[in-house]
Amino acid sequence: MKILVINAGSSSLKYQLYDMTTEAVLAKGLVERIGMDSSILNHEPTGGQEISEVSEILEHTTAIRKVLDMLVHKEHGVLQSVDEIQAVGHRVVHGGEAFKGSAIVTQEAKSEIRRLFDLAPLHNPACMMGISAAEINMPNVPQVVVFDTAFHQTMPEKAYLYAIPRVLYKKYRVRRYGFHGTSHYYVSQKAAEFLNRPLEDLKIITCHIGNGGSLTAIQNGESVDTSMGLTPLEGLMMGTRSGDLDPAVVPFVMNKEDLTINEVNSMLNKHSGLLAISGVSSDMRDITDGMAAGEPNSTLAFEMYEYRLRKYIGSYAAAMNGVDVIVFTAGVGENSVVVRQRVCENLSYLGVDVDEALNAVRSREPRRISTANSKVEVLVIPTNEELVIARDTFRLVQEQNSTNS
Amino acid sequence: MKILVINAGSSSLKYQLYDMTTEAVLAKGLVERIGMDSSILNHEPTGGQEISEVSEILEHTTAIRKVLDMLVHKEHGVLQSVDEIQAVGHRVVHGGEAFKGSAIVTQEAKSEIRRLFDLAPLHNPACMMGISAAEINMPNVPQVVVFDTAFHQTMPEKAYLYAIPRVLYKKYRVRRYGFHGTSHYYVSQKAAEFLNRPLEDLKIITCHIGNGGSLTAIQNGESVDTSMGLTPLEGLMMGTRSGDLDPAVVPFVMNKEDLTINEVNSMLNKHSGLLAISGVSSDMRDITDGMAAGEPNSTLAFEMYEYRLRKYIGSYAAAMNGVDVIVFTAGVGENSVVVRQRVCENLSYLGVDVDEALNAVRSREPRRISTANSKVEVLVIPTNEELVIARDTFRLVQEQNSTNS
Repeated sequence: MKILVINAGSSSLKYQLYDMTTEAVLAKGLVERIGMDSSILNHEPTGGQEISEVSEILEHTTAIRKVLDMLVHKEHGVLQSVDEIQAVGHRVVHGGEAFKGSAIVTQEAKSEIRRLFDLAPLHNPACMMGISAAEINMPNVPQVVVFDTAFHQTMPEKAYLYAIPRVLYKKYRVRRYGFHGTSHYYVSQKAAEFLNRPLEDLKIITCHIGNGGSLTAIQNGESVDTSMGLTPLEGLMMGTRSGDLDPAVVPFVMNKEDLTINEVNSMLNKHSGLLAISGVSSDMRDITDGMAAGEPNSTLAFEMYEYRLRKYIGSYAAAMNGVDVIVFTAGVGENSVVVRQRVCENLSYLGVDVDEALNAVRSREPRRISTANSKVEVLVIPTNEELVIARDTFRLVQEQNSTNS
Repeated sequence: MKILVINAGSSSLKYQLYDMTTEAVLAKGLVERIGMDSSILNHEPTGGQEISEVSEILEHTTAIRKVLDMLVHKEHGVLQSVDEIQAVGHRVVHGGEAFKGSAIVTQEAKSEIRRLFDLAPLHNPACMMGISAAEINMPNVPQVVVFDTAFHQTMPEKAYLYAIPRVLYKKYRVRRYGFHGTSHYYVSQKAAEFLNRPLEDLKIITCHIGNGGSLTAIQNGESVDTSMGLTPLEGLMMGTRSGDLDPAVVPFVMNKEDLTINEVNSMLNKHSGLLAISGVSSDMRDITDGMAAGEPNSTLAFEMYEYRLRKYIGSYAAAMNGVDVIVFTAGVGENSVVVRQRVCENLSYLGVDVDEALNAVRSREPRRISTANSKVEVLVIPTNEELVIARDTFRLVQEQNSTNS
């Protein structure tokens, strides 16, 4: 079965085409600047040459049509016909409490995703545009939705409730949801596999740290706590997000600077984090370069980032009364030798012992960076959210087919 | 030297009279309902009988005059003359970055405290009323101010800065200050003394948990991190305060419920925490009673409280790369056997081992509740903020006298 995986943003659309017989990626690509001037389609057939095409793409329906055209393109294509695509898997950011796992797209599912616009006003409408665009272009192909929040639906009440009037939960479902669930799920599975130990026996802390970042505490293979909350703002210091702060800072700053609700949200989500402290960049590579050059603001930004990440690892060790495995993943987690080193060298109280040479290895494979003496296994596992989406889509469509037959 | 210690709130005034030769408390008391109907003065001479007096007390100047009258009262008094009081020590909530320790009250100090009204609009004006009232009643007696924030001024930048635009720190001094510093300082000193070990060798986590609550990480005798922030809202779940939450919850709720800045502050400070989750009480005694009776909301409130407290202990262990001593103090910390027990039994990964019988002892003395095998010393140390204020006042006035002579 060939499956197209789609990750739609408000002005972008990422795709990967999988052959599920081998789980091979046949092609992948990205459409950018949808609805803006001179949209760009970057397409990369596996083993072939990457190509870029500039054209006018006003909305997601056109974007998907262009992608399908490219997938059957004489020169750059990988399919004879679009009919070979037997299912589409969509990444959806917010599944609220309704979606505790992936789901076949039905009228009901779509209504539910629309009801969640309120909780994810920036993300879910874009995901919905991706779903509609795929339905229009491939009307007879089953569609599946895979949620960033679903893996965290196992959190206990004590971890997901905020200590605020309960009416806010009842009326608006204000609670911790958490995000990056597909990634946390994938790397925790992969960790158990790599260690050749049953997932149920492991207390795992997964650190998904990229431009956004979140940590998850995983016990018995289930998310028991995670650092992002109602929105992706809570938790770690990120590229442009503040992460945790005294909630009273929000009204204080709104009052002083006469900010609207949108302005304060924008400040905390887009103009904070590494960018605000370094004054230079939201990208950890620039920050570590600045630190290496002795630049004080980059050094401070790095120290805050590392310190706060480390404190979260400590708090999740307390949440689970111990930790067996720490996993680093995503852009920073997979690539920043110095972030991993500095975090781990200050976790020796947990028995963490990282091998400097192993930590310095660059690879796209899952690997151990802790020594044989380390009481905690420290792993680097490249994440693969698209593969999880493809697998879930495959499974659900097969289940549906076998039910219908 | 006899020293009067004053803790002024907006409608209340607590006092203790010390004889510094022996550090004995000669008398203590509380004036309540200042500026309201039928104010009450409760006075308790040490070894004598507690008495209550109801009268009209419209402002703090009258309150202090009544206290002084009581201190020289023929029957209930403990002094021959108010001239025996050689200094007054005031508790002030917010010392900002200006006060890194206690200070003699001068015109300059008062101007600085007034400049800080902005950061502590509920607390500092009341403290200032206490200072003025004491100056009016005892014009020739030196006054000293002791700040809740001062002990935390040793925190490094990475611990006190928020990851938000730096202009907010430059313009308004938005940062973590922390509170309960006098208590964290006192119990950490007392812990080293109790253990007969040098403070410099110890990594200590002090848990000051009362109706408000904060944790401090103490290394080399200095505060290196603390859970309260710009205001006392951040950190632990408290009696009526939310503690940490996704900062995005604030604008979300303001928008949904059409709340003003004052309303959202009031919601998070006065109508959240244990009270909001239990629906019953902000008092841990009621919550544990409810839990014992199988009441689900009290049980949930307790679980959230314990879980979040434990996670903070874990995060500070990571902040210091280890912990040697955990100290419980203040109302809940000194008295709640079950809070201490439940927190500690889930910290066995740190080597924490608490003795059930020792933990169940009720006493007003500092005591160890961990077993001989515990890798972390767990202590219960009754706090004494008034004594610290009296000592600092004594020291500063003596220093001033010796400089002047």
